[in-house]
Amino acid sequence: MRTIALTVALTAAAAPCLQPEARAEEGMWTLGGFPSDRVEEEYGFGPSEKWLEHVRAASLRIAGGCSASFVSKKGLVLTNHHCVVSCVQQLSTPEDDLVKSGFYAEKQKDETECPGMEINRLESTTDVTKQVTEAIAGKTGQAYVDARKEVIARIEKACGGDADDKRCDVVSLYNGGLYHLYAYRRFQDVRLVFAPPQGIAFFGGDPDNFNFPRYVLDAAFVRVYDDGKPFRSKRHFEWSKQGPEAGELVFVSGHPGRTSRLDTVAQLKYARDIYYPERLMDLSEQHGLLMEFSRRSEEMARIAGTQKFRVENAIKAFRGRHGALVDEAFFSELVDAENEFRAKLKANDELWSEYGGAWDAIAEAMDRAKAMRFDVRYKAYPRFGSRLFGYALNLVRWEAEESKPNGERLSEYTESRLPGLKARLAAARPVYPELEIAQLGLELTQMRQDLGPDDPFVKAVLGPQSPYERAEELVKGSELADPALRMKLFEGGTDASADAMIQLARLVDPMSRETRKQYEREVDAVVSLNTEKIAAARFQLYGTELYPDATFSLRLTYGTVRGFPHRGMEVEPFTTVRGLYDRATGREPFRLPAEWKEKKDDLDPDQRMNFVSTNDIIGGNSGSPIFNRDLEIVGVIFDGNIYSLGGEYGFDIRNNRAISVHSGFIRMALEKVYGARRLVRELK
Amino acid sequence: MRTIALTVALTAAAAPCLQPEARAEEGMWTLGGFPSDRVEEEYGFGPSEKWLEHVRAASLRIAGGCSASFVSKKGLVLTNHHCVVSCVQQLSTPEDDLVKSGFYAEKQKDETECPGMEINRLESTTDVTKQVTEAIAGKTGQAYVDARKEVIARIEKACGGDADDKRCDVVSLYNGGLYHLYAYRRFQDVRLVFAPPQGIAFFGGDPDNFNFPRYVLDAAFVRVYDDGKPFRSKRHFEWSKQGPEAGELVFVSGHPGRTSRLDTVAQLKYARDIYYPERLMDLSEQHGLLMEFSRRSEEMARIAGTQKFRVENAIKAFRGRHGALVDEAFFSELVDAENEFRAKLKANDELWSEYGGAWDAIAEAMDRAKAMRFDVRYKAYPRFGSRLFGYALNLVRWEAEESKPNGERLSEYTESRLPGLKARLAAARPVYPELEIAQLGLELTQMRQDLGPDDPFVKAVLGPQSPYERAEELVKGSELADPALRMKLFEGGTDASADAMIQLARLVDPMSRETRKQYEREVDAVVSLNTEKIAAARFQLYGTELYPDATFSLRLTYGTVRGFPHRGMEVEPFTTVRGLYDRATGREPFRLPAEWKEKKDDLDPDQRMNFVSTNDIIGGNSGSPIFNRDLEIVGVIFDGNIYSLGGEYGFDIRNNRAISVHSGFIRMALEKVYGARRLVRELK
Repeated sequence: MRTIALTVALTAAAAPCLQPEARAEEGMWTLGGFPSDRVEEEYGFGPSEKWLEHVRAASLRIAGGCSASFVSKKGLVLTNHHCVVSCVQQLSTPEDDLVKSGFYAEKQKDETECPGMEINRLESTTDVTKQVTEAIAGKTGQAYVDARKEVIARIEKACGGDADDKRCDVVSLYNGGLYHLYAYRRFQDVRLVFAPPQGIAFFGGDPDNFNFPRYVLDAAFVRVYDDGKPFRSKRHFEWSKQGPEAGELVFVSGHPGRTSRLDTVAQLKYARDIYYPERLMDLSEQHGLLMEFSRRSEEMARIAGTQKFRVENAIKAFRGRHGALVDEAFFSELVDAENEFRAKLKANDELWSEYGGAWDAIAEAMDRAKAMRFDVRYKAYPRFGSRLFGYALNLVRWEAEESKPNGERLSEYTESRLPGLKARLAAARPVYPELEIAQLGLELTQMRQDLGPDDPFVKAVLGPQSPYERAEELVKGSELADPALRMKLFEGGTDASADAMIQLARLVDPMSRETRKQYEREVDAVVSLNTEKIAAARFQLYGTELYPDATFSLRLTYGTVRGFPHRGMEVEPFTTVRGLYDRATGREPFRLPAEWKEKKDDLDPDQRMNFVSTNDIIGGNSGSPIFNRDLEIVGVIFDGNIYSLGGEYGFDIRNNRAISVHSGFIRMALEKVYGARRLVRELK
Repeated sequence: MRTIALTVALTAAAAPCLQPEARAEEGMWTLGGFPSDRVEEEYGFGPSEKWLEHVRAASLRIAGGCSASFVSKKGLVLTNHHCVVSCVQQLSTPEDDLVKSGFYAEKQKDETECPGMEINRLESTTDVTKQVTEAIAGKTGQAYVDARKEVIARIEKACGGDADDKRCDVVSLYNGGLYHLYAYRRFQDVRLVFAPPQGIAFFGGDPDNFNFPRYVLDAAFVRVYDDGKPFRSKRHFEWSKQGPEAGELVFVSGHPGRTSRLDTVAQLKYARDIYYPERLMDLSEQHGLLMEFSRRSEEMARIAGTQKFRVENAIKAFRGRHGALVDEAFFSELVDAENEFRAKLKANDELWSEYGGAWDAIAEAMDRAKAMRFDVRYKAYPRFGSRLFGYALNLVRWEAEESKPNGERLSEYTESRLPGLKARLAAARPVYPELEIAQLGLELTQMRQDLGPDDPFVKAVLGPQSPYERAEELVKGSELADPALRMKLFEGGTDASADAMIQLARLVDPMSRETRKQYEREVDAVVSLNTEKIAAARFQLYGTELYPDATFSLRLTYGTVRGFPHRGMEVEPFTTVRGLYDRATGREPFRLPAEWKEKKDDLDPDQRMNFVSTNDIIGGNSGSPIFNRDLEIVGVIFDGNIYSLGGEYGFDIRNNRAISVHSGFIRMALEKVYGARRLVRELK
């Protein structure tokens, strides 16, 4: 039920102070709802319509789960290193590990395509609430699920979302209080321009992740191409060499992935007691596997590298959120807030009779979710920890969905999702059979454990074999690592295919659909419907002076550059290059790449390197531009501090901080360490 | 804070119904407190003094965390295969994997010593409450810790606990409501007689663990020697070939390790929110490591086998307990029970003023425990996942403790603990460097993660190296795998030793002691003191008609052979040999050893194999005899069903079941499958 892109690296915001009384600097605002008046009042500067329109046109989303921005008129894009590292890994070979050595295209022709990478820019938003709510009015259960799916697919298609260069998403804001149609320009030709070595991009590694002080160059540049030529971006952010000062007002535009600040207590308890503990167990098990896998050889370490980073990152993020929920003071405030809201609602007979049952209905759905959770994980949304299986299931399902009317398809196969699907299937991402076997074997073992060896689904998937035997047979019996073959099957159908993964996908598809339908009907639909009721009640009681929960759509936050208290000390807002060299022990993950050792004397030790600010961000904001009132980039967001992790559930300005790479440091690194003159010229 | 022997396999008892109103069949009773009258009333049979004395003399404890019993007058001992499997692994070699093939000593001279294995038999118990409470009266904090340690060491030494063949433990019953001195006969010459192959002992493996129906031969025999000859056991259990009938009254004597049925809500919340989620993450990470380690080769799989079993077992057990605590109905009952008790206490001004503050004091200590938990794990009780380091720390600490008065030593180095310590150091258990490096490296990584790279302890332990580099250096630089060297250092001191692990132990010892003292003072002492207050209040209000929480000391439970409801069906109490063959797919973990395939036609398919009963047991009861009113063994306890896992916190007779291997099946296997005539003759 909670599907979080693991890609999403950082996060933000902690400790309650929920809406309605959103505090200063709290809030992930839509551009249309941005509280310019309040900012004007507090800081003497209120963004104008034109200013906001500039932000819209220069802000970008990376489809996998990151944010980015245009920083030149020739389609140059700034984001985080960790947002492009899977591309860097894909372009690497055993002989030439670009994750380790970094990448720089000296000339434009050296810019290399990132397979499967997609960048979106928001072009327009339209309120479609009326259309959606009319279509679902009075419906419940399966009828509600079907009707909503149908109307959303219809709206998205009408918007032109099936075109290769367009993407249309109906976004539910305020948990279904509003529906907006987001239309994006879709860029699928994205080429790598500059990525520093992992050793400086992720200096301090997992130990430093989600902490501050930090010393990293977690920045990278790609370029968006259109028709084989650099895209002419009409709006972009200028570059500020000097960066921000302490106390300065700064803005962040980006795509926060998800917050749950409007969840009911029943949902929070489910997250605290079931969801996070079990996800953390899964991730920890994967981590143990990847650590041991990496020890086999340097090549295996390279292969497992990106995944290890993702897993470590996810563990920290989930631990932080779980940690917020098991903080009794924090949790009690959330409980109190709900009780207050319900008491206020109860005081109004009419509203109570219409909306009052929503909380209990959600609580019952969460009980159902608990009972069904293993079926949901393995049957309804099977992944088996295998990329090959993912390809196979997409191919088999597409074949079945293609002939259906758009509105009746599984949501990931509607016309507007098709270009993305095709691009992912066509992308030449390497598949590592050894790692596939290891992960598939472990996942099948876990499946048998959780569902029990007597479950018919388990018996069908494993047959008489042991999980690892079966994993080996499946991976060795599949040729889906070949993109050409995938596209052939996509176009021509899988009927004649004897590929082992295709066969498995065919086997599980019917059972999977059935379980998924049941889950959508008994849990998803009930939660959506009743969440919408609560949202409606909230509107009735509090009006619309609120910001919606994050939905991986464009948001703007404001804040100031400011340190924070930690274990009784005040942490300074800036780090410097001097601190980087002080911290470098020469061993992983505190080992500097060779060029940083060589160029040490050329660098100004007082150059500011990373900094923190009070912007309310969360996972999905990775790569977001952080800019001043003059629309100049002063840095790129790459992380949140440890206190920011509870931001999933509430914002606490006392210690919740966003972390950025300083624009002046990026510039210095490009110029003095990497001699990236072409790039520096373009940023001027 | 919570130290659970991972060795302990099974468990038992679930869903509230706490004391005071202990229900029928609930209760892990001391022999002295056994409710014979109640059993007489319910079943028409009440154990006599003499009967109970027989049980005492025939019941045994295995020091690592299991139970056992004498089954012949020549010192033959019945327990579980999983209680001796680490011995079996130690006797194995790469060429001769006894875990896989099994072991049978055809002649007495073939019986082989299990290195380091220790068996205890309870000889007497003495009430020493007065001595202890007088010594600690009015003391708090460090003074309380010191005084209690001193008086306990004094009592244990006076009892003769420093003799090689005696062991004396002061046991706190009713959470310090009573203190009893338990005096044991200590057997350190234990030899393996019979252990079946893992394939039948643990048929169904991890998927079937904690489930029923089951089909295993989780039984083994060892023999206790005295002065080089089989020990003449005056009392033993006779063997029942036909086993029990459904509904029959059966008893279990054994050593349940720990229950927490008297814990306060603050302690339960800590367990639910912090302890279990974090332990489950650790275990899952270890599991991922071991799964991947095992894939390297058959030999690596063999090396990792026992640990993998332990980890999987612990994951299930912890998941079950966590699952009970996150069951809202179950948890609310525990909260209600506490509130009721406190309300009753509050009604009495005098009692309330004396005891009423205990709950808040414990809650504060748990907050402290939460804040200190990483310091406690890595500093106060450092293990680093390394056996070699464990040896080193014992050697370094012994040297420091040896010269101190008995009462001032760290508790694990008092005179009465010395024989066990020596035996463990002298035992020729193999150390596998590859596995040591893998586990130590992961643990050091985790330590840096949890404490942060800037922690002085972390800096001291790692130096400038990466965790895996350091792990390799430490393991390769240590010769402590050699028992002769260990004994030399034990006798002669470690001063001159340049062993890498000894050096590390020396380095961490001072910091470790300091943190441990702080933890004992700020958490342990506060919890103990206030738990005793609550225990005292409980006595005042409810009298002594209760059973104490489990403490790995001898207990007797009664129950009946009975099935249970599961997912809307009634599970039958017995399985048969026919069911075993139906379940054997030929693949791990459902692959039968060759001899079971060969002998299939010789075996009675209707022979009962495993069965369930309502006895209230928990981890530590593994290997316990289950016997009828005539003191005949009808089986050996080896597990509890999935519902039994909440038994840590409460007992629910509706579905909580103990699982046993049937005595008739053991006999049949010995006779028909293994031709173990010598053994069968001895059991007659």
